[in-house]
Formats: sequence, C-alpha cells, structure tokens
Amino acid sequence: MGIKIYGFWRSIASFRVRVALRLKGLPFEETPVDILSGEQFEPGYEAVNAERVVPTFIHDGHSIFQSMAIMEYLDDIQPEPRLLPEDVKERAYARSLALMTIADAHPLVTPRIRNHLAKTFGADVKAIEEWGKHWTTEGLATYERLLARRLPAPFALGEEPGLADICIAGQVVTAQYLKLELNTFPTVARLAGRCFEIPAFATSHPFEQPGFKTASAH
Amino acid sequence: MGIKIYGFWRSIASFRVRVALRLKGLPFEETPVDILSGEQFEPGYEAVNAERVVPTFIHDGHSIFQSMAIMEYLDDIQPEPRLLPEDVKERAYARSLALMTIADAHPLVTPRIRNHLAKTFGADVKAIEEWGKHWTTEGLATYERLLARRLPAPFALGEEPGLADICIAGQVVTAQYLKLELNTFPTVARLAGRCFEIPAFATSHPFEQPGFKTASAH
Repeated sequence: MGIKIYGFWRSIASFRVRVALRLKGLPFEETPVDILSGEQFEPGYEAVNAERVVPTFIHDGHSIFQSMAIMEYLDDIQPEPRLLPEDVKERAYARSLALMTIADAHPLVTPRIRNHLAKTFGADVKAIEEWGKHWTTEGLATYERLLARRLPAPFALGEEPGLADICIAGQVVTAQYLKLELNTFPTVARLAGRCFEIPAFATSHPFEQPGFKTASAH
Repeated sequence: MGIKIYGFWRSIASFRVRVALRLKGLPFEETPVDILSGEQFEPGYEAVNAERVVPTFIHDGHSIFQSMAIMEYLDDIQPEPRLLPEDVKERAYARSLALMTIADAHPLVTPRIRNHLAKTFGADVKAIEEWGKHWTTEGLATYERLLARRLPAPFALGEEPGLADICIAGQVVTAQYLKLELNTFPTVARLAGRCFEIPAFATSHPFEQPGFKTASAH
C-alpha cells in the first residue's frame, strides 16, 4: 500500500492514526516531527503539510491531514474491520463521540495553545498545567455523562473497537500526561482500560514510541 | 422528515448545519439556546445534549450533536446534492479542509474559552479580542495557503458548494465578528463571497437570524 505518516510520540492525533492503521492491519512507516521544539514550522515540513501540524498521512504519494479525515479515509479504502458502523444513526453517534475530543476538548491543550498562553498572559508552568487539567476534565466529564446514558458493550458502539473508542482512549492519554485521577469517570476509565488491552492500542500509546523513550533517557 | 435543531444565531456550528440543511432543501425548525447567557448549562438542555453545546440536531426523535457528524449524517440519509464528493481522495480533502476550522481554529474562540480566559488570567475585553483575532487569523492563513495550492474552481472541491465551503464560510463569519480585514487572504475571501451569493448560505448567516435582529434592537 505504501503508507507513511509524519507524527510525533506525544501527539494525540498521531496516536489516533497509529491505532486506526494497526486495527486495520495496515503497515506504515512513521517519520517523527518534533512539535515541542517547533520542527513543524520549518519550511521543509510546510511543503508537506500547509497547516504545519501532525499527523500527515501519505498514501501512494497522496497526502491527507487531520486525524479524523485520515481515519474516515482508511474506512473508505479498506472497510474491514470497520472503524465506523454501517448503520447511519450509529455512524453519527460514533462521529459525535469522536468529535467531542477532536473538536472540543483536545484542541485547547496542544503545544501552540500552551505557548500562546505563556506569551500572551505570562502564564507560568503551573497555570498552563491548570488550564490543561480544566479542559481535559471537562472532556472526560462529557464522555462520562454520555457513556453513562449508553453503556459501552463492551466498546462504545458495540462488539468491536472503532473510531469513538480510539478518540476516547486519546482523551485518557491526555489525562495521563496531566496525572489526572479517573476515579470520577469510571465508565470512561473502564472503556480505556479495555482498549489498552488490545495490541493496536497498547503499541500505539505515546509512552511506547521510540521518541518518548529517547526523550526520557536524557 | 421532522427535523428540529437547537441552535443560536451567533454559533458558527449552528450556521454550518443551517447551510447544510438548506443546500439539501430539508425543512427544519430551530429553537434558540442563548449560549452567551449560559442557557446551554441549564438542566433542561443537558437532557437534550449532554455536552451542553449547540447545535443539537433531532431527526424523528433521534439526537445527533457535533456539526460535522450532523453534516455527514445528512449526506448519509440524503446523498443529493452531495456535501462530500464520491471519490475517496476528494472526500478526504473535503474533510481535511472542514476539520481545519472545526478541530483547530474555531474551538479556540467559543464563549466558554473567552469566559475562562477572563476568569483564569483576568483577560479583559481587549485581550480576549486579541486572542480571538490571533487564532482566527491563523485559521484564515492556513486556508489561504491551502487554497492557493489548489484554487477553488469555483468552490473548494469543484462545481458545487459542499462541506469544505460551508466550514470556510463559517471561518470568514468569525473574522467578520472580529472585524478582521481579509485583504491578505484573497482566495479565502473570494470563495466566501461566492458562497454568500447562494441563498442557502446568505439566509443562514448569523446576522440574518431572528436572534441577532432582536439582540441588535436593544
């Protein structure tokens, strides 16, 4: 197939794409772009991704950006195993769940936001961490309210893990970065626990990436 | 069909859904939820939308939230006229463009963020406006770079307006709120101009909603 991604160990959007590829059994190569040191703003990378974000997904020379667009594309080119259910109402529910972190909770805690808070409001490390905890907790609370109304059985949409589970698991990884307790979000915690028992999720976890291991060794 | 939405005149996500419904010729009723005064946090609305955001889309009693999930659902239940192209690579491009505002630019300028900046960092009206201008300009600049690489002909994906155009037009409405000049984003400005010549876009513009007219009359 010839799939290449530009990603970063800490990027939750890169995590989502990694899991999706592994659930589908599609081999890929990942090239790291260090978004903490600002490598995404270098001209060479802008030619790859005009938005200067990770991940970028390249399939036989064709580029796609935005993790949700990439995951939908994977379902379009190789429907089985499905990331999105076939039933239209179920598809809509899966997408709604996915977008709660993709469009609401996660955009608020990315490096560019943290840097801008420091620059604009003089936010220190502690204030930036509190900002991250606030919005990440909001996201977890929303998921808990929703999953309590329709319990995972055992995954968000049913028997098999898919788009919604990937995105919820990513929200839980953000909580891990911030050392947030999940006690008050038991349904979310159980779902994420179930996900990380699956090799596609476990091997895609940020702490399992070579970049994290190198960074931690210093 | 029995379509109802809970929306708000100023909500860009509500704008997107309104345009999508009108492009498809689907009649709907809209119930306003004043997100500036915090009506979305009242218990009655939480029963409708556990995420406490607008819009909520209700079709024959079934609820869907998140504007992107709603627009995809509309394409699933009534494919013509299409919001997303049929070709898988083109679909991915449309979704990538849509998500640049849905997942990156727009989440940063919503009322809950503005309120949290004031509460946490003591940001005043001017500082909050500057925050909004910064991220809205970033979003416009990204669109300009991308559209310059593949010029709209005349819409982002070709002959007909669709998902990407709706989202780009919404980003331009945010710029209008902030009175940003579009001179440096000529391709974006031309595309949005073309969109707002179409009745589905023009009648869905926030300034054309009854709530805006009532608010301005005071």
